[in-house]
Amino acid sequence: MKRRVGILGGMGPQATVLLMQRLIDATPAQDDADHIPLIVDQNPQVPSRIRFLIEGTGEDPAPTLAAMARRLQMAGAEALAMPCNTAHHFADTIRAATPLPFLDMVAASVTAARTHAAGDTSIGILGSPALRRIGVFDRAFAGSGLSPLWPEDEAALLAAIRQIKAGLPRDEARATLHRASAELLGRGARVQLIACTEFSLIANPTVTGALPVDTLDLLVGLIRGFALSE
Amino acid sequence: MKRRVGILGGMGPQATVLLMQRLIDATPAQDDADHIPLIVDQNPQVPSRIRFLIEGTGEDPAPTLAAMARRLQMAGAEALAMPCNTAHHFADTIRAATPLPFLDMVAASVTAARTHAAGDTSIGILGSPALRRIGVFDRAFAGSGLSPLWPEDEAALLAAIRQIKAGLPRDEARATLHRASAELLGRGARVQLIACTEFSLIANPTVTGALPVDTLDLLVGLIRGFALSE
Repeated sequence: MKRRVGILGGMGPQATVLLMQRLIDATPAQDDADHIPLIVDQNPQVPSRIRFLIEGTGEDPAPTLAAMARRLQMAGAEALAMPCNTAHHFADTIRAATPLPFLDMVAASVTAARTHAAGDTSIGILGSPALRRIGVFDRAFAGSGLSPLWPEDEAALLAAIRQIKAGLPRDEARATLHRASAELLGRGARVQLIACTEFSLIANPTVTGALPVDTLDLLVGLIRGFALSE
Repeated sequence: MKRRVGILGGMGPQATVLLMQRLIDATPAQDDADHIPLIVDQNPQVPSRIRFLIEGTGEDPAPTLAAMARRLQMAGAEALAMPCNTAHHFADTIRAATPLPFLDMVAASVTAARTHAAGDTSIGILGSPALRRIGVFDRAFAGSGLSPLWPEDEAALLAAIRQIKAGLPRDEARATLHRASAELLGRGARVQLIACTEFSLIANPTVTGALPVDTLDLLVGLIRGFALSE
């Protein structure tokens, strides 16, 4: 019997659908029953993390996230996962809300970075400038011997995220990502975390010589590992 | 405030993801909060409908579906929907399990067929032979003045479903669908329901002269209508 994972979703809704699609794609299946059971709270109305954390206005999302965790537990979830790096700022609130294990995408990113680092000391992060400012990755990497390195041109990255969200052709966004990837590689960050779901949608997001590690794929791995182990 | 719809999902998991993706695509959004909240029970372990209904072996899926409906209600769902035509055989069980409204994809198909019929008396159905055998659409069309018409070559349709599920290139499956569509059109069925999620994945599933109506899109419409009305 496979164990059911609860998804704190909707941040944004497309990230949640992408996670579900990748779970299907990662599962060799002869029949429906081979796939992994989920209970998904697709809640696009979680108060804006950016507004609360960066702009200092708006409602605190923490109580909503705690309530979602409790509802997922009531609905049969045996572990929790959240396909949004920024919202991992509230991981402790989610952990405290239920006794369920929390499958931590940011912690998994640090583990993956250490695995691939091979003597490197800097890990590139291709994500939203908001993610940099809230310090989720800086705190997670503390004590790991690795430092997160962020691209200089924040405005270009933000513009690329907006272009992808708006459904525009992805060539321009990929060109922006490649410039950021080349910059990070030049500054010594060979391992590069894809830490933004919009960037997860871009094929070949990094330049030759860089090693891309998609945080969403790491979460897929955690969910599969939990669901398929007794 | 948007009302939250509970999804009895996982039959198969890809159909559920496709429904969620189409809901996102159908929603003009400036921000996450513009999207529709869902609570999704992605349960690929619902006992096989085919095995129980057609082969006469295996576990009855009805108790599992009723339990899913109750769990979705506990998790905050205000209505229920199910992206699987075959499983609508159990619609009454689901209706009886909670006081929530059930957004009925098969009933919506009959309504859409009547709207588009314009004097036609036959409605073509491009779906699995199993769907034909359980009689879900025959019962739904009873008394409507319309008769469902099914393609003759059931083996070809089944093979096309298997090809799509296996991720094979879709040209061959589309060719099969076009032969079935041309046959239905020749027999007088201009309106053709796409009543199988595998076929919903095929662009341009019908021949010129036929009017395709995708049942999954009808469910998207029902969910949007419910979620956005007070």
